[in-house]
Amino acid sequence: MLSNHLQNGIETARLVWSRLPNSDDEALDEVGLSKKSDGSRSESLDYEVIENNAYREEQAQRGKLMVGYYVGVKWFFALLIGIGTGLAAVFINISVENFAGWKFQLTFSIIQKSYVAGFLVYILFNLLLVFSSVYIVTQFAPAAAGSGIPEIKGYLNGVDTHGILLFRTLIGKIFGSIGSVGGGLALGKEGPLVHTGACIASLLGQGGSTKYHLSSRWLQVFKTDRDRRDLVTCGCAAGVAAAFRAPVGGVLFALEEVTSWWRSQLMWRVFFTSAVVAVVVRTAMGWCKSGKCGHFGSGGFIIWDISDGQEDYSFEELLPMAIIGVIGGLLGALFNQLTLYITYWRRNYLHKKGSRVKMIEVCLVSLITSVISFGLPLLRKCSPCPEVELNSSIECPRPPGMYGNYVNFYCGKDKEYNDLATIFFNTQDDAIRNLFSAKTIHEYSAQSLLTFLVMFYSLAVVTFGTAVPAGQFVPGIMIGSTYGRLVGMFVVNFYKKLNIEEGTYALLGAASFLGGSMRMTVSLCVIMVEITNNLKLLPLIMLVLLISKAVGDAFNEGLYEEQARLRGIPLLESRPKYQMRKMTAKEACGNKKVVYFPRVVKVADVVSILQSNEHNGFPVIDHTRNGESLVIGLMLRSHLLVLLQSKVDFQHSPLPSDPRGGGKPIRHNFTEFAKPVSSKGISIDDIHLSSDDLEMYIDLAPFLNPSPYVVPEDMSLSKVYNLFRQLGLRHILVVPRASRVIGLITRKDLLIEDNENSETVELQSTSVRAQRQDRKASVREADAEHPLLNGLLVKEYSSS
Amino acid sequence: MLSNHLQNGIETARLVWSRLPNSDDEALDEVGLSKKSDGSRSESLDYEVIENNAYREEQAQRGKLMVGYYVGVKWFFALLIGIGTGLAAVFINISVENFAGWKFQLTFSIIQKSYVAGFLVYILFNLLLVFSSVYIVTQFAPAAAGSGIPEIKGYLNGVDTHGILLFRTLIGKIFGSIGSVGGGLALGKEGPLVHTGACIASLLGQGGSTKYHLSSRWLQVFKTDRDRRDLVTCGCAAGVAAAFRAPVGGVLFALEEVTSWWRSQLMWRVFFTSAVVAVVVRTAMGWCKSGKCGHFGSGGFIIWDISDGQEDYSFEELLPMAIIGVIGGLLGALFNQLTLYITYWRRNYLHKKGSRVKMIEVCLVSLITSVISFGLPLLRKCSPCPEVELNSSIECPRPPGMYGNYVNFYCGKDKEYNDLATIFFNTQDDAIRNLFSAKTIHEYSAQSLLTFLVMFYSLAVVTFGTAVPAGQFVPGIMIGSTYGRLVGMFVVNFYKKLNIEEGTYALLGAASFLGGSMRMTVSLCVIMVEITNNLKLLPLIMLVLLISKAVGDAFNEGLYEEQARLRGIPLLESRPKYQMRKMTAKEACGNKKVVYFPRVVKVADVVSILQSNEHNGFPVIDHTRNGESLVIGLMLRSHLLVLLQSKVDFQHSPLPSDPRGGGKPIRHNFTEFAKPVSSKGISIDDIHLSSDDLEMYIDLAPFLNPSPYVVPEDMSLSKVYNLFRQLGLRHILVVPRASRVIGLITRKDLLIEDNENSETVELQSTSVRAQRQDRKASVREADAEHPLLNGLLVKEYSSS
Repeated sequence: MLSNHLQNGIETARLVWSRLPNSDDEALDEVGLSKKSDGSRSESLDYEVIENNAYREEQAQRGKLMVGYYVGVKWFFALLIGIGTGLAAVFINISVENFAGWKFQLTFSIIQKSYVAGFLVYILFNLLLVFSSVYIVTQFAPAAAGSGIPEIKGYLNGVDTHGILLFRTLIGKIFGSIGSVGGGLALGKEGPLVHTGACIASLLGQGGSTKYHLSSRWLQVFKTDRDRRDLVTCGCAAGVAAAFRAPVGGVLFALEEVTSWWRSQLMWRVFFTSAVVAVVVRTAMGWCKSGKCGHFGSGGFIIWDISDGQEDYSFEELLPMAIIGVIGGLLGALFNQLTLYITYWRRNYLHKKGSRVKMIEVCLVSLITSVISFGLPLLRKCSPCPEVELNSSIECPRPPGMYGNYVNFYCGKDKEYNDLATIFFNTQDDAIRNLFSAKTIHEYSAQSLLTFLVMFYSLAVVTFGTAVPAGQFVPGIMIGSTYGRLVGMFVVNFYKKLNIEEGTYALLGAASFLGGSMRMTVSLCVIMVEITNNLKLLPLIMLVLLISKAVGDAFNEGLYEEQARLRGIPLLESRPKYQMRKMTAKEACGNKKVVYFPRVVKVADVVSILQSNEHNGFPVIDHTRNGESLVIGLMLRSHLLVLLQSKVDFQHSPLPSDPRGGGKPIRHNFTEFAKPVSSKGISIDDIHLSSDDLEMYIDLAPFLNPSPYVVPEDMSLSKVYNLFRQLGLRHILVVPRASRVIGLITRKDLLIEDNENSETVELQSTSVRAQRQDRKASVREADAEHPLLNGLLVKEYSSS
Repeated sequence: MLSNHLQNGIETARLVWSRLPNSDDEALDEVGLSKKSDGSRSESLDYEVIENNAYREEQAQRGKLMVGYYVGVKWFFALLIGIGTGLAAVFINISVENFAGWKFQLTFSIIQKSYVAGFLVYILFNLLLVFSSVYIVTQFAPAAAGSGIPEIKGYLNGVDTHGILLFRTLIGKIFGSIGSVGGGLALGKEGPLVHTGACIASLLGQGGSTKYHLSSRWLQVFKTDRDRRDLVTCGCAAGVAAAFRAPVGGVLFALEEVTSWWRSQLMWRVFFTSAVVAVVVRTAMGWCKSGKCGHFGSGGFIIWDISDGQEDYSFEELLPMAIIGVIGGLLGALFNQLTLYITYWRRNYLHKKGSRVKMIEVCLVSLITSVISFGLPLLRKCSPCPEVELNSSIECPRPPGMYGNYVNFYCGKDKEYNDLATIFFNTQDDAIRNLFSAKTIHEYSAQSLLTFLVMFYSLAVVTFGTAVPAGQFVPGIMIGSTYGRLVGMFVVNFYKKLNIEEGTYALLGAASFLGGSMRMTVSLCVIMVEITNNLKLLPLIMLVLLISKAVGDAFNEGLYEEQARLRGIPLLESRPKYQMRKMTAKEACGNKKVVYFPRVVKVADVVSILQSNEHNGFPVIDHTRNGESLVIGLMLRSHLLVLLQSKVDFQHSPLPSDPRGGGKPIRHNFTEFAKPVSSKGISIDDIHLSSDDLEMYIDLAPFLNPSPYVVPEDMSLSKVYNLFRQLGLRHILVVPRASRVIGLITRKDLLIEDNENSETVELQSTSVRAQRQDRKASVREADAEHPLLNGLLVKEYSSS
């Protein structure tokens, strides 16, 4: 009866595995992928209905009810993510704008009397904000430092960094951003907003934070990694959509830059989330326009409208634009390289000395930033205001306490402005708006722009990697638009044409620097178009991005990839490495010994094996009646640990149990197997077993993955890589070459019609269709004759 | 020595297989995918460098030279595709605009004297153009009928429809479009432009058309299906970019709607192609503005600028907008269903009667269209012109022979216009411009719009599927904007607000109908934004699309999917069907007997096997010394046919040949194995062999795919489906469960660093990195000790 046991074992495994909330990506392929199978209209739960009648009916009924609930909750969550991220963005924006607004208003009013006092107030204000940020981050939420995009990218690639999606990280990110951006550091709030969106999505996905008693049971429907990843993808898109008010850019950012596995169904939901964010932000802006968000409330939502700028371009301009692209590529690659070195040094020396050093470092950076941004404009001589055109809405100098160009700062006369202060002594959003602005030819001197470029570039490099939430988008735009405007000045002088606007070149410069640093293409292009609200420059932005990305790629990898590597997040690239062609699957496994389990295993053996190695998956091997061995599946470490901890499945007999053959039923609540988000799960050292327990046995059959993906030992590693990467696996079994072929699956075998489409099927007239119909019939016959796994059994019977 | 033979056989297979220009997608995975492996900077040729030293060095040298050439040609082709598609679009546009312009000018000048004569001239002009189109299509290029998008979609999904990418199809498509669109039928030129782009790309990819002696040897570098598919993807994007002047929309269209396998590297090249198209079209437009393209030359490039329209929206408007979404979903789904029935009827009854019936049908449709578009406005009473505002640039009635609103047609007085003629008796581009136009409240009566909606909808349904090139975008926009404007009229009346523009609702209606019919999301959204040059309505377009797609999905599939199914193009959807969960791989194979070859096979056996079945792939099985059988690979039918045709590899001995053991070398020119694009390839019936030939043998080892993907027999079919679909396979071997596990591949095993990045590797400090370094070292040792395939050999030696 051993072969019967084998059969029952594998069938039980199929049944149970399909209900496990698997915490492994591989599980995800078994259950998660197969789950989305009933056409594009609805998405069903992860119940693999098996041939056992008693179970099938029950499951079918449960399934139908759950399907509706599951789909509903999915879309409801997308809505919630959109609303949540939108509100978080509005909150951060209003706070930053108000803090910065008060700061500059206060400083400007004090410097009317004393520049020294104004200087001190300015420094203190900045220091206070920055310190609050670094304090929150170091003491409360260490994972909130940096932009968070490399970590999120890693998460969606399959590497879970500890703590990045916790509730405390969310809080730290939101309040930390307010402090660091409001405190005038050379960083932006856009990267952190992407992280914020991801945190909100992940917390919703696990039904709230368990630690802070905010969880809700009815929201806990998403237990597979796949569902959580989908939610986090939505969150990323929502973050970009909120940060730039660029809903399409958000979708593309999530698609191009963040996710590793993308399905067209997901696009649809991500799109919805972005649309919700757009509506929320727009509503908040309408509300702010009436003055309810403080004096400076409405300024922070990035739209650098350049629609009154250059409408057209001529061929002569393509050369200077190409030059901008090259500069962007060079400066971007240099930025990546410098930040890489500095971050490396920080990680290995500076930040090892504890959080006090981190705080001192940030405060020092803040001090330097304040001194430079206040002090440098003081050294600069003011320029006289240009002659005012009649229709121009631009005032010179701008009225105190308002936004605008032509800042009067340390100027002797009334009708003068300080061009360096216009960009330096300002919030970054306004500085960019001033740099992009049209109809302001000759506002800036080349000297000021160059000074600003060098200083700000250095500040951005130094600030990157400090222990505060920091985005690279806005600093990148600042740097890029400065040299872009510089090039634009020369073009205006050289071509002497009237329709050339320096602001257009500033925009192209911004695109080129971001392209050269982050190496995004389509998403960046769309984001640039959406934030400038101008479609006419699209071909130019494309051109500049193409050049800058190509130049940058010649030197190093993109910013996020470099940072992910530095942080030890091993991203699997979309393409296999060159060397892999020469290697086989067997060589990749090296000389490691494969540790496997028999089907029924002694608890003591499990414990000793789990303690002696770090593997996360173990093949399970059983024997047929005549002694042949057979790989029956893959057991995950995490599931083994749950079994050891709960002990309910321990048995005294070393023989397989059979739940349907009179044996004990499966006693587990399947949600126990779900791994909490962003935690390390249980460790073998946390589990304490008595000596009696150690003498007992576990039948692994119900809990293993019955059909992991396998490859023959001499398959080229690049093929294996593609399989691994495309399907998002965690384990592949390497097995010997097969001795015989049971069948061949081709496209035709996989074309099975839905029953509901039978009307359409009857319309079909081609030969392919006819064949398919035949196939369908024959499959059904086979289905009726042979229950599942008969193939295996037939072989066993014949061999026994 | 048999096991040595086995070893040599498989090694030879590896070597040769890697050089075959495989005409199968599976090949594509073996060679094509593994080929893109040296980082993101360059892409290398398909040489799988093997362990054999003699070959390796030669290949390495050839490889490096070829890599540069290959990458250069790839980008050069992207440039050419962009230029070619851009020029084709410009040509079609100018031709259509000029024909249509002359037609309307002539008609308008004649109806000043006699409406009957004008009517006849109008009908004749249309009939002539349409007849030229249908004549070209039926007599010369039958594959040019319809939009071509379903066929291209099928091609990129892996199904090659005969003739869709030929040179004659390209010519037929271009001239056919000019006739059918210029002839005023209810169809558009956008779908055909996508097909045109794909044809241009494919012809470039095969180095010109061999039949028309336009081929060039140095362009023939792309021999794998994968490269060709990449080019066709670029062509599709170029087509959309040219048709709508929407470069980003083109990229997204290619991504969302057309391709089945997408890689981020491809996005980059597609993006470049789109940018080139944008520049070409813009240059041509600048050239046309100076009047060099004929009087009507500049009007055809779709930009329906609505930037002077509604700037803002209020919450009360969301309800009517949702209603537009629902209407769009319903009418779109109805359109899909009606066209499905009519196309089915046409395919099975009408069009079976030969091309004369097709021609008569199209001419009849043209006649009806002309009568309705001329006759219906005659029945409509003219309305008096609205009072002219001071600043308005809109004249009423428009000057004769010009574009614009307020067409004076069959009106008694001078200051009157015919609202039905304004949309009906016009080119579709202008009609849409008039429907979208702002500041023209109450231009149309509800009665006229409703009449137009019903008539045009019916015409579009009837015209769809006739034997002329026909796109659905512009008719869809026409239909949608009509009911959108209708809803807009009610909203204007109901809310009595001044800032509501009917044109905005027309735009949303257009989006909703396209969403309800084609079911695109992000790409459609971006295209709508790009053609209207207005970003402010983006959230509203998103909302409307979400609703209309959801409503449409409740009834049927998207237009292209339905049409593809009807045409017998079996598209593999991205998700497995629900039933597949219950099935195993073995069941999918059914009871079909597996036909396999031994390694050395008699020619007569090959011929009889190829004649007796239709399989495209055959497993090859060899025996080890002690009689164990072993699957050594998969042989493709197409390659067998090449072998049979050339006969150079026939041998007298039934023993395996060994090219390095003193046997004969491989005599084949590898390009022989490339299948020409869009041809059926050779058939077994075309090959004639003498009786002497039939008695000879072929050693298949050099030509087989040595490691096809395998799955265990009891793997669930949904998992198999994912494997098949994600990797774009054509064959999967179903094998018995393995008896043992040689190793386990995990993420860590696949993280191998490039040597060139060694500097960065040294920076790594985390534990994962350290482990990786160890792994790398051990892999290299293993590599040095055991040459390739040793695993197999060791097993053999031990068993013998």
